[in-house]
Amino acid sequence: MSAVPAATNACIAELKALLGERCTTAEAVREHHSKGESWHAARLPDAVVFPESTEETAEVVRICARHRTPIVPFGTGTSLEGHVVALNGGVSVDMTRMNRVLEVNAEDLDCTVEPGVTRKALNAYLRDTGLFFPIDPGADASIGGMTATRASGTNAVRYGTMRENVLALTVVLPDGRVIKTSRRARKSAAGYDLTRLFVGSEGTLGIITAITLRLYGVPEAMSSAVCGFKDLAGAVNTVIATIQAGIPVARIELLDDVQLDAINKYSGLDYPVQHTLFLEFHGTQAGVKEQAEMVGAIAAENGGGEFQWTTRAEDRSKLWQARHDAAYAALALRKHECNNLGLWATDVCVPISRLAECILETKQDLDASFLVAPIVGHVGDGNFHLAFVLDKDKPAELAEAERINEKLILRALAMGGTCTGEHGIGYGKAKFLQAEHGDAVSVMRLIKQAIDPAGLMNPGKMFTA
Amino acid sequence: MSAVPAATNACIAELKALLGERCTTAEAVREHHSKGESWHAARLPDAVVFPESTEETAEVVRICARHRTPIVPFGTGTSLEGHVVALNGGVSVDMTRMNRVLEVNAEDLDCTVEPGVTRKALNAYLRDTGLFFPIDPGADASIGGMTATRASGTNAVRYGTMRENVLALTVVLPDGRVIKTSRRARKSAAGYDLTRLFVGSEGTLGIITAITLRLYGVPEAMSSAVCGFKDLAGAVNTVIATIQAGIPVARIELLDDVQLDAINKYSGLDYPVQHTLFLEFHGTQAGVKEQAEMVGAIAAENGGGEFQWTTRAEDRSKLWQARHDAAYAALALRKHECNNLGLWATDVCVPISRLAECILETKQDLDASFLVAPIVGHVGDGNFHLAFVLDKDKPAELAEAERINEKLILRALAMGGTCTGEHGIGYGKAKFLQAEHGDAVSVMRLIKQAIDPAGLMNPGKMFTA
Repeated sequence: MSAVPAATNACIAELKALLGERCTTAEAVREHHSKGESWHAARLPDAVVFPESTEETAEVVRICARHRTPIVPFGTGTSLEGHVVALNGGVSVDMTRMNRVLEVNAEDLDCTVEPGVTRKALNAYLRDTGLFFPIDPGADASIGGMTATRASGTNAVRYGTMRENVLALTVVLPDGRVIKTSRRARKSAAGYDLTRLFVGSEGTLGIITAITLRLYGVPEAMSSAVCGFKDLAGAVNTVIATIQAGIPVARIELLDDVQLDAINKYSGLDYPVQHTLFLEFHGTQAGVKEQAEMVGAIAAENGGGEFQWTTRAEDRSKLWQARHDAAYAALALRKHECNNLGLWATDVCVPISRLAECILETKQDLDASFLVAPIVGHVGDGNFHLAFVLDKDKPAELAEAERINEKLILRALAMGGTCTGEHGIGYGKAKFLQAEHGDAVSVMRLIKQAIDPAGLMNPGKMFTA
Repeated sequence: MSAVPAATNACIAELKALLGERCTTAEAVREHHSKGESWHAARLPDAVVFPESTEETAEVVRICARHRTPIVPFGTGTSLEGHVVALNGGVSVDMTRMNRVLEVNAEDLDCTVEPGVTRKALNAYLRDTGLFFPIDPGADASIGGMTATRASGTNAVRYGTMRENVLALTVVLPDGRVIKTSRRARKSAAGYDLTRLFVGSEGTLGIITAITLRLYGVPEAMSSAVCGFKDLAGAVNTVIATIQAGIPVARIELLDDVQLDAINKYSGLDYPVQHTLFLEFHGTQAGVKEQAEMVGAIAAENGGGEFQWTTRAEDRSKLWQARHDAAYAALALRKHECNNLGLWATDVCVPISRLAECILETKQDLDASFLVAPIVGHVGDGNFHLAFVLDKDKPAELAEAERINEKLILRALAMGGTCTGEHGIGYGKAKFLQAEHGDAVSVMRLIKQAIDPAGLMNPGKMFTA
């Protein structure tokens, strides 16, 4: 690791004067802030700060800007493409102490939170209001991080992604000014859509310090089901037909046989080891029944078995926890076999008409490979994931994952899809941004240059050098 | 009117060489392209061109850029805040000859169209597919114009606005380069959200030459109802309770007593002259019945009368046509009384918890004023409109409209709302952009400057000089 620049040391001294113990250079803390939950090479920031307000965050940014010190916003550290790695050193700005729910406007079905509030903490806070926030990327991520990466997850097929569910943001700009991108009205035609510009900007344009979110009434009825299929095509075609019929499923998740076997073992379940859909229906009692019957009929036509139902809240929670533990379950598949186990999680999203083809071709690649990589997917959106379970000490495994990942992405792009449906670009996928967007990347760079001319906000992310 | 600059004449000569008769300086054509459907002062462009392809549009832009000649994109000319007025002269780029539906991907519930396709033409084209495009701003606007102004309308409460329903755009940048902002995947976390940046950019960042839209299956059942209320508060509170209960109404529109009287007279209807809701429900047969019962119960609690139902397609069309003709009906209220009649339509949008208060205070202003101005609203979104019916020869009427409009906007802003829910900024509301967004406007200006450094794209719109 290179020596810390003098400017950075001067910067850290000012930050310590501002924040006291909430600015630290302790190795263990910097280590914790050197990476997300992914395979990407880590790099330690030179310091970590813990602001407690928008004004403090703005002052941190002003100090860093004065000393030309890189700034890397940090939430729960659950990102998957190296978003939070301090590639050029500098200061990791940990937002987790800004974890207050600032207001809940139950009548307007919205709330405003600080970025360090996690999605589970928000839903716990909302429990008595009859409202909930549906976006659920699996990890108990921070709302700030979810906003910055345009997260989505299992419920997005019905409720949309962070793109659709963020109403307004407070943002500290790279020069330390504070803006509000919008107000609480449900819609507006007043000016450029800065809210959507900052949603998914991955910390490269500023630091998000407050988020106004849409909320939803807890449905009168919710019920979940599991359905196994004779073959992968039948499962995927069930999804496609369900979406095309406009049935408002709340969740429709695919787990291939490898993944189902993994979660059976990890979570102590005993589903038949088949390609399987996990489903959830939200609505009135009658509406849920109607939806379930329609999807049941579609599944039966496509070689699906009987639905196994869970309607009790605790059983539903267990089911979805198992789904969310898919990555850990995948890791466990090889835990006895190697010491330096790692997960390389990648995702793509394609138009749903191409989903079966995309998944089946990818499954062929995996069948022909020596790697273990379960497939799971938010298939109602056309979005699915591979999780390569790797021995990080074996370069051949990393190289093979890279080969299959690149093939997957180029396949998705050729089908009119995207190189990432929900994980984001970070630095892991920066090389694919140009392949996906072509000349539009030059417009993104113009915007980056205009808003962050010194290039201090999360440098090295999104764009290649 | 000032003399045409030499550069503009040279520009027009080049455009004529490129387009022949599809570049014209004829007075009548320029007159038609000098204004939208609003009260704002018109100004003629120096020429009007009619490109027929993205490549031709790009060449037009390159020619104008070389000669530093302003460019004003033009659709159906139905905008309401002076968006299409050639404030600095230059070239009006009429997109209506680019009116082809380029592709319909029925399986993916999307389509790609040229900007000159109108919403009615698109739905006529889709008739045999079982799909429809729901966004309906009233006027038979072009999809390009609707995209550029982030339009919404009656169905937005259920289906969202153009913000939620545009998947991707092809855009000619101010330097003549062509970009695609996104692909057809339902979601993506790859890069800045350029699609949403151009949606609502009002022609100030480039010219939209293709739009990929979400489509929806035509619901199994659709039914419309009309319900009168004893007082305005009861009508608005019915809307609020319906939205808060999460009932997925497709349309829920308010017409005050003045507006209802106007459309009765204009459209030959005989509804009781009361504050009235027009409603529509979409879904399965059972779902529509369930929704209607729930809303009916809420209305009854709030002093609403019996629902008058229309389920036959032609009756529903007649009902909604009457709603869409609200502006013309308002004009007709004073047609015998003055010769130079004009309509000043304004709109605001507030959080729904403030809607009753905002409408009632506004109604008080109107009751105390000598002006006629019916209220109509897409109240499910918290969005409503005033339509001042003015004698344009009477400055006192214009001044009074300006006074009430400004009061309305400041009221909406104070309630956490926006100065325009759907009409846009144009040049009519440029002075309110700063009041609404504060320092965030400086970020919008940075983006404008970065993408259009010469300031040739629709100059004078959105930002004050």
